Amino acid sequence: MDDKRNICLKVAYDGTYYHGFQRQPEFHGPTIQGTLETVWAKLVEEQVTLNTAGRTDTGVHAAGQVVNFRTGARIPVDKIPKAFNSLLPRDIRILAAQEAAEDFHARFSAKWKRYDYRIDNHPVADVFTRLYSLHEPVRLDWQRMQQGAQYLVGRHNFKAFSAAGGTSKTFERTLYLCQVAENQGHLRITCIGDGFLYNMVRIIAGTLVYVGKNRIQPGEIPDILASLDRKRGGVTATPQGLTLSYVHYGEELPRDIFPELFQEGVSHDSR
Amino acid sequence: MDDKRNICLKVAYDGTYYHGFQRQPEFHGPTIQGTLETVWAKLVEEQVTLNTAGRTDTGVHAAGQVVNFRTGARIPVDKIPKAFNSLLPRDIRILAAQEAAEDFHARFSAKWKRYDYRIDNHPVADVFTRLYSLHEPVRLDWQRMQQGAQYLVGRHNFKAFSAAGGTSKTFERTLYLCQVAENQGHLRITCIGDGFLYNMVRIIAGTLVYVGKNRIQPGEIPDILASLDRKRGGVTATPQGLTLSYVHYGEELPRDIFPELFQEGVSHDSR
Repeated sequence: MDDKRNICLKVAYDGTYYHGFQRQPEFHGPTIQGTLETVWAKLVEEQVTLNTAGRTDTGVHAAGQVVNFRTGARIPVDKIPKAFNSLLPRDIRILAAQEAAEDFHARFSAKWKRYDYRIDNHPVADVFTRLYSLHEPVRLDWQRMQQGAQYLVGRHNFKAFSAAGGTSKTFERTLYLCQVAENQGHLRITCIGDGFLYNMVRIIAGTLVYVGKNRIQPGEIPDILASLDRKRGGVTATPQGLTLSYVHYGEELPRDIFPELFQEGVSHDSR
Repeated sequence: MDDKRNICLKVAYDGTYYHGFQRQPEFHGPTIQGTLETVWAKLVEEQVTLNTAGRTDTGVHAAGQVVNFRTGARIPVDKIPKAFNSLLPRDIRILAAQEAAEDFHARFSAKWKRYDYRIDNHPVADVFTRLYSLHEPVRLDWQRMQQGAQYLVGRHNFKAFSAAGGTSKTFERTLYLCQVAENQGHLRITCIGDGFLYNMVRIIAGTLVYVGKNRIQPGEIPDILASLDRKRGGVTATPQGLTLSYVHYGEELPRDIFPELFQEGVSHDSR
């Protein structure tokens, strides 16, 4: 046992200019992990390795990513966000820092996560959301998408909604919520679940886009799930639409944290 | 009289990477005007000079800029947006094109314009709005700002709210609306008026930020207006918060077009 503290950070980032979260053995471009570790080394002259709640791919964003690392540095925990932010590029921000229990691990301790997938459904792309949305010029029937999404809620084998290349050995996951909201031509697909397979939210989004275009019927979703066949769903939606929004570590279920998302009807998207 | 058509375009752009709207005699970086004129020349091999409803400064955005130009090219007007958009960078989009009356001029024919100034009032900047907002970490009292804003509505001499360097000889302008809305820590100041002096919206925004910090009382705004003295107000707020949202050419007053903005109370900002 050492006397190192276990520090947990809540991090937001615009993933546009990063080659994903995970530091790469060879340098292909900046990563979120590499940038955070480099800044920490500058701040306190200490090499650390971050754990993360969810590795995000190239171009994927985070509004509430969580990381943890062990440190022997003596900087007070409440000074950490400002110190980090003074050296980080402006597309990465530390929102909060706290000292965690010794056995806290950003990934293994997580109880559930929320992802949002955004679609700009205007005929001409909105320049202000182009980096944070999939642009789909064909008019989508978002209420059909919402119907289709309901079949994904619950505990299922999501093999048909996962890409090759993941490290998971099991495909059973629970989706607590899968909801489609619309606001002035901008759609948001919100997924809350106890775990997500590789590319799962992007494949759900791509499949629901097919539902919105009437290429897949909402009632076919149970068949696609049951087939366990990736080829049955839609294409994997592009990374820039995806945001890791929230990671939860307590005991409450998402309906206690986001009651408005679990109301009847569909919420208004206001980011 | 020539047989050239007068084409009018509605244009949106993210101004982050542009040196303002207006083409410069010497090249300091790309401009919106220069980019549009270059793309038009590529499309139809014709040099044109654009008129614009409002020249925007470096870093300022537009959701509904309007430009016009005369052309002898024979491309059908309904093909123009797609043709332009296929060659434009993705941070500029043509939203619509139409043939205008011979005497239509994007600036001189405009009846009123709408600008929105956005402020991110979270303690740590929101990475997703950083390019489109002023970040102000100190908590602003937006209801006081809304009180102060009401004193600016009406016909006034706005010299105290204009920067040196403008080309206007008169300072009398009418503000139909000056409204502060809040949504989840994001503020939006909406100004609708028959004309705007140089930096007027940014000086209004900077002055209302002082009101929100209690450095200026709402009731001091009439004195500041009456002083005609630029030094009495707040600092000019940074350009990236400003968006030219809409330009109107018809006879209707803004209250007929945006009735929700003229209701009692303050609207919810949902972009």
